[in-house]
Amino acid sequence: MTKKKAIVLLSGGLDSTTTLFYAIERGFDCCALVFDYGQRHRKELKSAAAIAKDKNIPFTIIKIKLPWKGSSLLEKEMPLPVRKKMKGIPSTYVPARNTIFISFALSYAEAVGAGAIFIGANAVDFSGYPDCRPAYYQAFQKLIEKATKKGDIMIIAPLLNMTKKQIIKLGMELGAPLHKTWSCYAGGKMPCGVCDSCQLRERGFSLYNKVK
Amino acid sequence: MTKKKAIVLLSGGLDSTTTLFYAIERGFDCCALVFDYGQRHRKELKSAAAIAKDKNIPFTIIKIKLPWKGSSLLEKEMPLPVRKKMKGIPSTYVPARNTIFISFALSYAEAVGAGAIFIGANAVDFSGYPDCRPAYYQAFQKLIEKATKKGDIMIIAPLLNMTKKQIIKLGMELGAPLHKTWSCYAGGKMPCGVCDSCQLRERGFSLYNKVK
Repeated sequence: MTKKKAIVLLSGGLDSTTTLFYAIERGFDCCALVFDYGQRHRKELKSAAAIAKDKNIPFTIIKIKLPWKGSSLLEKEMPLPVRKKMKGIPSTYVPARNTIFISFALSYAEAVGAGAIFIGANAVDFSGYPDCRPAYYQAFQKLIEKATKKGDIMIIAPLLNMTKKQIIKLGMELGAPLHKTWSCYAGGKMPCGVCDSCQLRERGFSLYNKVK
Repeated sequence: MTKKKAIVLLSGGLDSTTTLFYAIERGFDCCALVFDYGQRHRKELKSAAAIAKDKNIPFTIIKIKLPWKGSSLLEKEMPLPVRKKMKGIPSTYVPARNTIFISFALSYAEAVGAGAIFIGANAVDFSGYPDCRPAYYQAFQKLIEKATKKGDIMIIAPLLNMTKKQIIKLGMELGAPLHKTWSCYAGGKMPCGVCDSCQLRERGFSLYNKVK
């Protein structure tokens, strides 16, 4: 039997890397899809490329320029929010970012006959972005049923209801190279340690190390 | 009262141009969004730019490269289908194209505070693409409710259930410059007259001229 094909959205971070290894372990023939969308730095792109290359996974980069403003993830002159001081949806939110990413993955999946799209979205230890919540993925699944020729492509978000600690544990068990992943929004030589993404990551590792 | 803002997907064709004029007539402050996505020719982009410029509508072009193959609209070496011989969904179908376009429009709308996205999709005199059917737009509306901060952006597809004849009549009544629109997939000096898009357009004008 030929392996089932899947498109995996890979950012080079902890969650998407664990998701890639989860899809591989589930027997999927994976293609990684990576977005160069004007994020503040290119560190995560390098991480994504290194991780895919190590596993001999085909790797496609889509370059996108969003000309509208308003996200601190895209505008270097805007300050990054500090997790402790955050209220509501943080300024790192990029409007409809995951919708754009999944749309491209859907196009790719339909073009190559893949039956699944994997995404490392998480709705527990997360920043509160609307496009990371379970109801969003349920609605996208229903859209796919109407949007494509056969309507049979599945969105799979295996980490959706896990804590960061559980994600790290799963990544470790799957042999994912978590040391090669990059989470910091700032993209300095070392992670800044104060941005939302750093804080979520650090807390996860700290909890994981306490109980392992 | 300030005017309601809307994003209008403009291709430079008959349907999207009529839709733009419909949105203007409904009192929306419109921003045109145009995609340069590797279509076989650039004639429709020029038409779109000219039409938006005439009405002093802000005009944003998004450049996209879909690296996957399989659509005769993107690959010049593939023959274009002739309408009379067509069965099922034609080879001009670009997987998830409208999903990608609407995703960008959604991002744009959320970033600038627009309350509506207008699209000239049509499910009567159309090529049978899955992402032109009413159920697709209903599903996308439900997705938007989950995908964005406020969930209050509307997709409006005013031509969805019209015949091409009715669209031409509406466009004429609204004063849309239909003579400046471009429909032919081939993009020669003159429309080829045999591709699906030409045939639908010609049939529409012929029926319109019979009864006007």
